[in-house]
Amino acid sequence: MSDTREQILEQIKVQGDLVRQLKAAKETKEKTEKEMLRSIGRQWCCSAAFQCRRSKRAITTIVGQQLKAQEQQLHEQQQQQQQEVHKIDDEVSRLLALKAKLGGDAAPANQKFTLKTPKGTRDYAPQQMTLRQSVLDKIVQVFKRHGGEAIDTPVFELKEVLTGKYGEDSKLIYDLKDQGGEILSMRYDLTVPLARYLAMNKISSIKRYHIAKVYRRDNPAMTRGRYREFYQCDFDIAGTHDPMLADAECVKIVAEVLDTLDIGDYVIKLNHRQLLDGMFEACGVPASNFRAICSAVDKLDKSPWEDVRKEMVDEKGLDGVTADKIGEYVRLSGGAELVERLLSDEKLKAVPNAVKGLEGMQLLLKYCALFNLDHRISFDLSLARGLDYYTGVIYEGVLKGEQEQGPSAAKTAQNGEPATSEAGGTVGSVAGGGRYDNLVGMFDPRGKAVPCVGVSIGVERIFSVLESRALANKTKLRTNDVEVFVASAHKGLHEQRLRVLNQLWAAGIKASCLN
Amino acid sequence: MSDTREQILEQIKVQGDLVRQLKAAKETKEKTEKEMLRSIGRQWCCSAAFQCRRSKRAITTIVGQQLKAQEQQLHEQQQQQQQEVHKIDDEVSRLLALKAKLGGDAAPANQKFTLKTPKGTRDYAPQQMTLRQSVLDKIVQVFKRHGGEAIDTPVFELKEVLTGKYGEDSKLIYDLKDQGGEILSMRYDLTVPLARYLAMNKISSIKRYHIAKVYRRDNPAMTRGRYREFYQCDFDIAGTHDPMLADAECVKIVAEVLDTLDIGDYVIKLNHRQLLDGMFEACGVPASNFRAICSAVDKLDKSPWEDVRKEMVDEKGLDGVTADKIGEYVRLSGGAELVERLLSDEKLKAVPNAVKGLEGMQLLLKYCALFNLDHRISFDLSLARGLDYYTGVIYEGVLKGEQEQGPSAAKTAQNGEPATSEAGGTVGSVAGGGRYDNLVGMFDPRGKAVPCVGVSIGVERIFSVLESRALANKTKLRTNDVEVFVASAHKGLHEQRLRVLNQLWAAGIKASCLN
Repeated sequence: MSDTREQILEQIKVQGDLVRQLKAAKETKEKTEKEMLRSIGRQWCCSAAFQCRRSKRAITTIVGQQLKAQEQQLHEQQQQQQQEVHKIDDEVSRLLALKAKLGGDAAPANQKFTLKTPKGTRDYAPQQMTLRQSVLDKIVQVFKRHGGEAIDTPVFELKEVLTGKYGEDSKLIYDLKDQGGEILSMRYDLTVPLARYLAMNKISSIKRYHIAKVYRRDNPAMTRGRYREFYQCDFDIAGTHDPMLADAECVKIVAEVLDTLDIGDYVIKLNHRQLLDGMFEACGVPASNFRAICSAVDKLDKSPWEDVRKEMVDEKGLDGVTADKIGEYVRLSGGAELVERLLSDEKLKAVPNAVKGLEGMQLLLKYCALFNLDHRISFDLSLARGLDYYTGVIYEGVLKGEQEQGPSAAKTAQNGEPATSEAGGTVGSVAGGGRYDNLVGMFDPRGKAVPCVGVSIGVERIFSVLESRALANKTKLRTNDVEVFVASAHKGLHEQRLRVLNQLWAAGIKASCLN
Repeated sequence: MSDTREQILEQIKVQGDLVRQLKAAKETKEKTEKEMLRSIGRQWCCSAAFQCRRSKRAITTIVGQQLKAQEQQLHEQQQQQQQEVHKIDDEVSRLLALKAKLGGDAAPANQKFTLKTPKGTRDYAPQQMTLRQSVLDKIVQVFKRHGGEAIDTPVFELKEVLTGKYGEDSKLIYDLKDQGGEILSMRYDLTVPLARYLAMNKISSIKRYHIAKVYRRDNPAMTRGRYREFYQCDFDIAGTHDPMLADAECVKIVAEVLDTLDIGDYVIKLNHRQLLDGMFEACGVPASNFRAICSAVDKLDKSPWEDVRKEMVDEKGLDGVTADKIGEYVRLSGGAELVERLLSDEKLKAVPNAVKGLEGMQLLLKYCALFNLDHRISFDLSLARGLDYYTGVIYEGVLKGEQEQGPSAAKTAQNGEPATSEAGGTVGSVAGGGRYDNLVGMFDPRGKAVPCVGVSIGVERIFSVLESRALANKTKLRTNDVEVFVASAHKGLHEQRLRVLNQLWAAGIKASCLN
């Protein structure tokens, strides 16, 4: 084929020039068309005025004729333009056909773009895959120990499935281009697809896990393990069970996963959406403002109280006194004793939601104690979680002490990332979840609810921690399992080597003769 | 919150009506604007004509004034429209804010769409996941036996990465919506991302495997395992090795995978792109038409020769005599003896490409014999493979005999799917691949080539076969691994159950107390 390659490249060049010319010409004409439409009046009215010596009728006729001619011209011009559009399409097809002809050989000439993965994404090299696989295997072991079954769902959903589920975060959803047919969006988490799956298949009880990538057009901070494409490892319990049994099991799973991965000390913060709502009510927040204020409280892990207060007052229209009341509560954290104290708090006592939330927390803390999680959990009134769909217990697993990783944290701050509290005492969240009793009902035609509670392990952050640890320790992971390498002293002997290889493979031995 | 829910729903309704009104009004005005632009001339020229009793100057002035007024009016109207656009944006934001307020509670009212996965995709239920995992595990075992290392790449790539790699199939690529930033497309296979990865990281030698989903906007035929989202299991050998060593290993891998999965009798068809090109040359096809004719030959597994010949002659401009010459060759298949015969074929002998291709086939067949693959392979001149990037050996693993699955094949045909040869002797392809020595070079700024050969296992088709077999045999797969279920005769005893569970989990025993 090489003898015609040059010819084709030349043809492509000529064809490409032609297409560019046609497109440029079309653009110029389009610009002038509107101009022409507007000027028809002026141009011909002036002409009419000049000819007003003749009779009214004559002028009307002349003006009419001239206008008609002008409009005819415009019409022809538009028709011509349409033909040109068709011509451009034809020539573009011809250009593409030429390029297709070149096929695999066309490229070196094409190569003009930066060689990279999309913003916020990365490749996994064999070394990283080995690490990732070992982490995921350990997580699956925990999920299976708790009776989990695996499911998988498509990477994209009908856009409507995701609409109205994520509150302020919806703007971060990746949409697919409308290429005809359905309007699709990339999944933003694994929870909404689960709810869709349960409603669609009328499943009212399952313990399922799902390990897959999700997509968020967020501001990536890759050194801290924040990506636009990232793995979630979700375990959820759907179905009607006695209060807090499933919730406590999810907290236990977070602890087991973080223990088995051995990535350092951590705390699991617990709170309750009903208590948050009750607290807002007790402080005098209008009910219509609960979700907005909740979303502000959610930022407390990244921003100081002053900023959050400002958002509440300036952006969300709360009065300062109310905000300050909230500020007093959200500073509280502790254990069972704090629940006791709040249960006798005059303001909260008067609000049924607050009391229900506190009673739930009381039971949860008791079950967590039975699971030996006392030293791992913290009832924390500042925990809010951004997503809209939570209705009960919420929790978040947070790694403590970036100190071990001082250099990388410092580097992050230097890179222009905001030096948040992450650089200080606590590291980013590595697990989170909660109860969402209404989400499945949103998909059921008759609104039939399936109560659910679940947890999501954010493994990218865990990969980051383990990768930088492996780097610091100069750990080398084997990335292939070859047991026998078949070589020969002589250059030939191909057949002999292949015979030996064939025997080894047949015996189930991992072997290779190629590097 | 429930006391305000009704209020908010009412507000949303009012706000929604407002937005719809505004949008409808805007649309009507836009329609009239162009009309108005065109009529300015006619309207005011007529008016001028009626006033022509006055002096030329006076009329000119009047006409000028009136025109100016008219244009001023148009200008104001356009400004007003812009303001209206802003107003619509504002009102839409207000509507969204209201909806956000409702948050998790909003849904049952919203639920109006069909509950489904996107066209051509499906969920995997626990039963299917169990089957899928066992298939993938077996495939990974084979890949590892051959020294494979795993990598992973993002699910989307910069659009430019995929451009110009797939010939006529490019129209099947899923694009992402342009939401600002980079222009992205979903990966169409795992081969192009591998080539991008190798060039980007300057890797010149690797045996890598990659198991991940790819995306094609093809016409789905889900009963036959043809989806728009589907798994590929790829094994590729990159690097410079002695001729046909890597190629033969890939063929061996296909055989090992299909053997280990035990899905029935199969054949691996082999051919060589250089031989195809040489054959086209020998038949008198112009070199510029090689890829197009190759793409027509590729359809021989689905369409009869008459249709393919028609495509060659009518669509691709080949003369009938040339097509018939090709027709004689592509009907041939066999083993080493066929290679011998073709090496002494007068027409082919004269074409260097054909001779090189045949010599390559000769060596490949020898190595395959050493790997005990004699009874599994068939040198088949009708095998062409659609993708543009192949440069050497190509192969395809095909299941024989749909007979075992008679009912499902019949059902497929009834469903309006074309009753192709798949319903007859051979089933669809379940593996395919070949050599692509120029693809990596397309990404290297200096065109540095890395020779590659690889194989892709199409596991969806395999899942389909195994699923329908499990269904027929009424095989029940366990979907969870629970070893101990902790129950109590009394309704209470929650704490006791949790204590027992906690002990079991700590001992690594899979246990549950929730269904």
